[in-house]
Amino acid sequence: MRFFEEFEVGERRQIGAHTFTADQIKRFASAYDPQPFHTNEEAAAKSHFGQLCASGWHTLAVWMRLNVRGMQDEVRRMQAVGAPQAKVGPSPGFDQLKWLRPVYAGDTITYESEVVATRESRSRPGWGLVSMRTIGRNQSGEEAISFTAHVFIERRAVASAPALEEG
Amino acid sequence: MRFFEEFEVGERRQIGAHTFTADQIKRFASAYDPQPFHTNEEAAAKSHFGQLCASGWHTLAVWMRLNVRGMQDEVRRMQAVGAPQAKVGPSPGFDQLKWLRPVYAGDTITYESEVVATRESRSRPGWGLVSMRTIGRNQSGEEAISFTAHVFIERRAVASAPALEEG
Repeated sequence: MRFFEEFEVGERRQIGAHTFTADQIKRFASAYDPQPFHTNEEAAAKSHFGQLCASGWHTLAVWMRLNVRGMQDEVRRMQAVGAPQAKVGPSPGFDQLKWLRPVYAGDTITYESEVVATRESRSRPGWGLVSMRTIGRNQSGEEAISFTAHVFIERRAVASAPALEEG
Repeated sequence: MRFFEEFEVGERRQIGAHTFTADQIKRFASAYDPQPFHTNEEAAAKSHFGQLCASGWHTLAVWMRLNVRGMQDEVRRMQAVGAPQAKVGPSPGFDQLKWLRPVYAGDTITYESEVVATRESRSRPGWGLVSMRTIGRNQSGEEAISFTAHVFIERRAVASAPALEEG
């Protein structure tokens, strides 16, 4: 991964796209969000959603998978050219998570992130905090989900950051 | 479900507890968060976490399942006594989602919610917005995850709330 200093406010990154099939929607929801409008077409037709739609947590979990794959691809690309790599710390959390529109079976959500803030960590020398606003849009370009994620990224200035203390 | 008017700021509810096994952690992470410290014990031992721990999204998805089951139990209890029930609308989102401590394999997380705000919806007559702060604590009583969820709940004052317009 790139170092903290290389993240610039305003830069954007395509995270990827995913089409949510009815089978996937029902499988995720059966395990983690078994509300009838996520697990059964007929019940969904009678609900306020009007048709089968994905659990909001499913739309987030898919973003996470695409995001992790993107990071792993970047790590491999940098390894291939022998570039020094920053450590990525844990995410301290998320803000302003909004489900703006239902994600119906068959919808394709495309996720894009923008760096909205960077700051050196006061509590964790050697680390910086990067905040990224992510928006997931459906095939009509409508915003379906948005959130701001924060993540610790190692600073270039120090050779090796001290281990992060959890909690 | 109870109507909006019956939610009071300060009331608490036990959502349930779950023990995260290594198998569950690896299975969820393989599908949605395939970072090595969530999918492989040896890689986790070398990471900043020090041992296998659950994806933050896994700790949320499990809360959602327990939460949905609790709501469904309440609906059934109210049906059994013929009580009128409020409709529950979609969640407009979450705030202040924090992963405060890793959830290691074998940890048991107990989730508890507290109503922190209630307000009548301006944009959606017949509906109220209930905000609930949830904390998940491990078996030592330490906070591992916390977040504030918002959800639309039908008001009692009107016989039947108009359907919610999504988006």
